[in-house]
Amino acid sequence: MALPSPSYTITLRVQVPASQRASSTVVAAVADTGAAVTGVDVAHSTAHGLVVDLTCDTVDAEHGDRIAARLEELEGVHVLKWSDSTFLLHLGGKIEVAVKSPITTRRDLSRAYTPGVARVCTAIADNPEDARRLTIKRNTVAVVTDGTAVLGLGDIGPAAALPVMEGKAALFKQFGGVDAWPVCLDTTDTDEIVAIVKALAPVYGGVNLEDIAAPRCFEIEARLRAELDIPVFHDDQHGTAIVVLAALVNALKVVDKHISQVRVVVSGVGAAGNAIIRLLRAQGARHIVAFGRTGALHPGEEHGDPHRAWIAEHTNPEGFTGSLRDGLAGADVFIGVSAGDILTGADIARMADDAIVFALANPTPEVDPVEASEHATVVATGRSDHPNQINNVLAFPGLFRGLLDSGATEITDELMRVAALAIAGVVADDELNSAFVIPGVFDHRVAESVAEAVRTVAAGGRRVRTSWRGPAAR
Amino acid sequence: MALPSPSYTITLRVQVPASQRASSTVVAAVADTGAAVTGVDVAHSTAHGLVVDLTCDTVDAEHGDRIAARLEELEGVHVLKWSDSTFLLHLGGKIEVAVKSPITTRRDLSRAYTPGVARVCTAIADNPEDARRLTIKRNTVAVVTDGTAVLGLGDIGPAAALPVMEGKAALFKQFGGVDAWPVCLDTTDTDEIVAIVKALAPVYGGVNLEDIAAPRCFEIEARLRAELDIPVFHDDQHGTAIVVLAALVNALKVVDKHISQVRVVVSGVGAAGNAIIRLLRAQGARHIVAFGRTGALHPGEEHGDPHRAWIAEHTNPEGFTGSLRDGLAGADVFIGVSAGDILTGADIARMADDAIVFALANPTPEVDPVEASEHATVVATGRSDHPNQINNVLAFPGLFRGLLDSGATEITDELMRVAALAIAGVVADDELNSAFVIPGVFDHRVAESVAEAVRTVAAGGRRVRTSWRGPAAR
Repeated sequence: MALPSPSYTITLRVQVPASQRASSTVVAAVADTGAAVTGVDVAHSTAHGLVVDLTCDTVDAEHGDRIAARLEELEGVHVLKWSDSTFLLHLGGKIEVAVKSPITTRRDLSRAYTPGVARVCTAIADNPEDARRLTIKRNTVAVVTDGTAVLGLGDIGPAAALPVMEGKAALFKQFGGVDAWPVCLDTTDTDEIVAIVKALAPVYGGVNLEDIAAPRCFEIEARLRAELDIPVFHDDQHGTAIVVLAALVNALKVVDKHISQVRVVVSGVGAAGNAIIRLLRAQGARHIVAFGRTGALHPGEEHGDPHRAWIAEHTNPEGFTGSLRDGLAGADVFIGVSAGDILTGADIARMADDAIVFALANPTPEVDPVEASEHATVVATGRSDHPNQINNVLAFPGLFRGLLDSGATEITDELMRVAALAIAGVVADDELNSAFVIPGVFDHRVAESVAEAVRTVAAGGRRVRTSWRGPAAR
Repeated sequence: MALPSPSYTITLRVQVPASQRASSTVVAAVADTGAAVTGVDVAHSTAHGLVVDLTCDTVDAEHGDRIAARLEELEGVHVLKWSDSTFLLHLGGKIEVAVKSPITTRRDLSRAYTPGVARVCTAIADNPEDARRLTIKRNTVAVVTDGTAVLGLGDIGPAAALPVMEGKAALFKQFGGVDAWPVCLDTTDTDEIVAIVKALAPVYGGVNLEDIAAPRCFEIEARLRAELDIPVFHDDQHGTAIVVLAALVNALKVVDKHISQVRVVVSGVGAAGNAIIRLLRAQGARHIVAFGRTGALHPGEEHGDPHRAWIAEHTNPEGFTGSLRDGLAGADVFIGVSAGDILTGADIARMADDAIVFALANPTPEVDPVEASEHATVVATGRSDHPNQINNVLAFPGLFRGLLDSGATEITDELMRVAALAIAGVVADDELNSAFVIPGVFDHRVAESVAEAVRTVAAGGRRVRTSWRGPAAR
């Protein structure tokens, strides 16, 4: 049965008779529907009755209606209205523009705007590099999507994708002190997206591509990397790859195996799979076999898509052909970035001893993590309700913090590799165990550690300062 | 001689001997160069000497060097460094992204981001109108430029234009509670600009076009108005026209003339001139003659440019031909949006009694306002150092506040006319005089008044609420 979740928190405004018993009955009735009551606050009270705001976590979007119907059956109880906390939180959006230094006097106005601003404009026109010093470009990243591959929802369009991009912008600020702005494009034309992002670039110090469908995302990323002088990151590829490598480095420590010797099976040859394979190779992995829907990719195979062709050419040196299930036999590591429920515990049982399973399909992993953990030593998923959550928020805020601080113009494999090692390094040797191979998303050391590693690599070892003071202490 | 200005405020860090006399000598030496000393703060002190931060307003960008050289001549005095307040204020930009509700726990994360956000995305995909309720679209305006006509600086490009757009965004927020974001486009192609702004539109509830060169700005504005379902405003045209009409309505009260009867001369047939003429006609002006560089435009004339053709067709009913100077003879109102120093006091003297002169070229007005005021009753400029400043900040924040609150999809002439009357109405009859025909830019009543008028008109008289609490009290 589904458990109540804070992503389905609702508040019911309920009229109840003025008695201890009536209030208790209401709370019991709500709990009885499977909801977790987290608060009862009195909104109004008279001699005859109370109006209370009852807050509870529910299991799905319809649960609120069931609760309301149940309460209406009680003597003297009426539900005046109910509201959904997730929707309330989204009213008017999750981010806003703030003025760094208020304009309240003529003196302020003459510096921040005319006539004083003209001198700053002229300075930038004379020396374009000054834009990174004298404008928001220094700390600002565009979060760019066309809304075609949003979460597990698919092609929902740019307007419906905006809440995700706002959330991403909020995480950028909160975890990395980076000002990120949503760019939700009402076009799915590759050439047009490339042209638009190039035209927008003067305002930004970096680009984070997000939730753009494959294979278009590859071309957009490659062209923007080639044509822009600011770093371009595709979170679905690079963010995932960084966090997977971080978790794998620590998981291999737990099972005492070496990356150059383990046999790695990757399920999924989309955006994430491709980037994971590249980064694992950069870290020294030698035995990787990748599986698409039709089985193992192998050298010599013809692929229209250059990204699959690259995988086929650079993996599976022994030329294994066959299904994912067969490929798992004797493998040390399974990394799934494909689809839910395609494997069972029995499949995992065929892997080598001390197997590592990263089942990252969302919201349903490739294999049930509880079943997998009966046969594998380390199991990680994308979910927050199991140990070892592979969450991109561990990577992108600190990565861009470091990129912006160092004025880096591109994101190299080495830079991503170092970022992954920084994440892994946050878990101390005496903390490391099979249920804790990756730090938690609210561990404030992560972004600082990633940023510092990126600054050092991007600046070629030179020390670069940051004005960032780190995420608010927990 | 130029006067010290707060847009040229500098701070010098100066080492001085530890004596009262030495400090006084330093201050006197600085004042002697023509600077206005506003503060002396001790940074460090020892038995042998002091390090003081001396802040002063200077007259131009080179004045700081002259002061430093002068101080170095004094016994025991050394200038350690000097910095410019306007540049210091711009370090890292003037705006930032703020998170409206912090994400500090798993509970917050599961609502603002995954998995909870998916429900909000789905709601918008099912009902696109919900984007105005559940995302930043409700309160966000794009400030769009291509950097081709920035202030008086001309075509300085999108990067150098960014400080102006950031300043504009700061004013939008501070005066109207509107979240505005700079869109500085690295292209001057009309088709491309139109396509880009259309593609960006899902995130925005309105578009403010800014500092785009004529005649391209007209076509961009017209096409975007036709193709977008959010209001499109061209500040250089419409903002100026609204504030000019506001000032004119009050100036005509001062001289007791009626708009339908006055003879109006407009100098300048670019973006601003065109919009001013349209709005004056909407308010009932009948006798307008417009002058370009080659003299009066008149009906029957051929114009390749459709905007000049429109002016020629809709002004100058008596078919006056000749120069601006000749056209001024007997005119009641002069409105200049052209170039500096093209008229003298003698030209103004040829106007009718109780003449009104708006000399808005920036930074140098069409006629010296002091000379003009010897012959005209009301004189206004775009400058802050003379009475009656025509400043667009009186219009755009309140206008967009009202548009966003009412969900308006277009900006009609009637809406602009009503906004102008709202600005004019802030000056009470007993406050009105020839030196005060337009409210000051820091009068917080203006934006509220404009917003309320716009909401009423846009909603067809229906009352629309705002969540805005007005600019911070002065």
